Amino acid sequence: MARRLEGGKLVVATHNPGKLREIRELLAPFRVEPVSAGELGLPEPDETGTTFAENARIKAAAAALASGLPALADDSGLAVWALHGAPGVFSARWANAGKDFLPAMARVEAELAARGAVAPGQRIARFVAALCLAWPDGHVETVEGTIDGAIVWPPRGDLGFGYDPIFRPEGEARTFGEMSAQEKHGVDWDAGRGLSHRARAFVKLAETCLVRR
Amino acid sequence: MARRLEGGKLVVATHNPGKLREIRELLAPFRVEPVSAGELGLPEPDETGTTFAENARIKAAAAALASGLPALADDSGLAVWALHGAPGVFSARWANAGKDFLPAMARVEAELAARGAVAPGQRIARFVAALCLAWPDGHVETVEGTIDGAIVWPPRGDLGFGYDPIFRPEGEARTFGEMSAQEKHGVDWDAGRGLSHRARAFVKLAETCLVRR
Repeated sequence: MARRLEGGKLVVATHNPGKLREIRELLAPFRVEPVSAGELGLPEPDETGTTFAENARIKAAAAALASGLPALADDSGLAVWALHGAPGVFSARWANAGKDFLPAMARVEAELAARGAVAPGQRIARFVAALCLAWPDGHVETVEGTIDGAIVWPPRGDLGFGYDPIFRPEGEARTFGEMSAQEKHGVDWDAGRGLSHRARAFVKLAETCLVRR
Repeated sequence: MARRLEGGKLVVATHNPGKLREIRELLAPFRVEPVSAGELGLPEPDETGTTFAENARIKAAAAALASGLPALADDSGLAVWALHGAPGVFSARWANAGKDFLPAMARVEAELAARGAVAPGQRIARFVAALCLAWPDGHVETVEGTIDGAIVWPPRGDLGFGYDPIFRPEGEARTFGEMSAQEKHGVDWDAGRGLSHRARAFVKLAETCLVRR
């Protein structure tokens, strides 16, 4: 039986500004007051998990424990099939220390080229977001959202963050880098639909764990 | 320009008995004398890479440096698409300390079930083997072999090792766990063909880096 968060403060356990912005937008319709881990001075735990869901759990549980408040973490990334799922849980780690994703995007393209993956059908990829909502008593709820698409090159658009400029969702003409935040979320709460991996994960979380304003 | 290994001792940089056996079989037609890292008392380096190819390079380069001999390493694993490429480079780490893969195979099935991936088309997976041949002077050659297939449950057969009993290669009725080593390799050196990911990687390595007896 899923536990619902009725309201009050919610720690958003991320130090990634792009992610924090999107999570605040996606939480806006719900009865919670988001505070970021950065504002609370919480440390970033090591992401030692082997899956997105494990890493989301590590981050949410650490923030809930450290703050004494419910905490929400997002672990997300890009899985490219011709790269056997890479960069996957290492998506952030492929970027340089300054969190500039251009070298990381170039590496995806270089690794595809090295494997001769040039035809459209060979460039299939998936964005994944695992969300974990953790309470200080140790209870956790985890959901996952995914969106399939294709890797494009060169990068297109300067909206979004991370690998957005090289990811074109299935059935869309534009990359996530060419979409406004609202278009990328593509969320319809009443219909239970979203476009991005993160929006789809929030739709699932909302169903069982959040309360509308 | 690829460098060829003309003959002599070759360190096989693995401490996995199943992998060592298969590598010895696949090296048999070539002019090298395999010695295992275990026989030489070489330590196992930490596999800190984010891809199979990186981990193969880490292991081969460490063994070549420590032994002063050319060294060959294999980094391999199972990437399940519905699990976004997991367990991937963590394939060995999903097994318990005793390297019993039954819990690891059960975890693959549990994670598929948790995502409702029950239809045959949702159980697509890929075995990947990256081989790296490293020389003491720092030169490396890296190749990769893959075989696509499907995850079956329950496990079938007790041949092979690792995740073999739950992997059925595309176009085959049996899992790798139900095939003899010779059938699993399925190798035809003259035609440049192999069945398993490892055999396919060796076919590529042989083309550029090995010499037939």
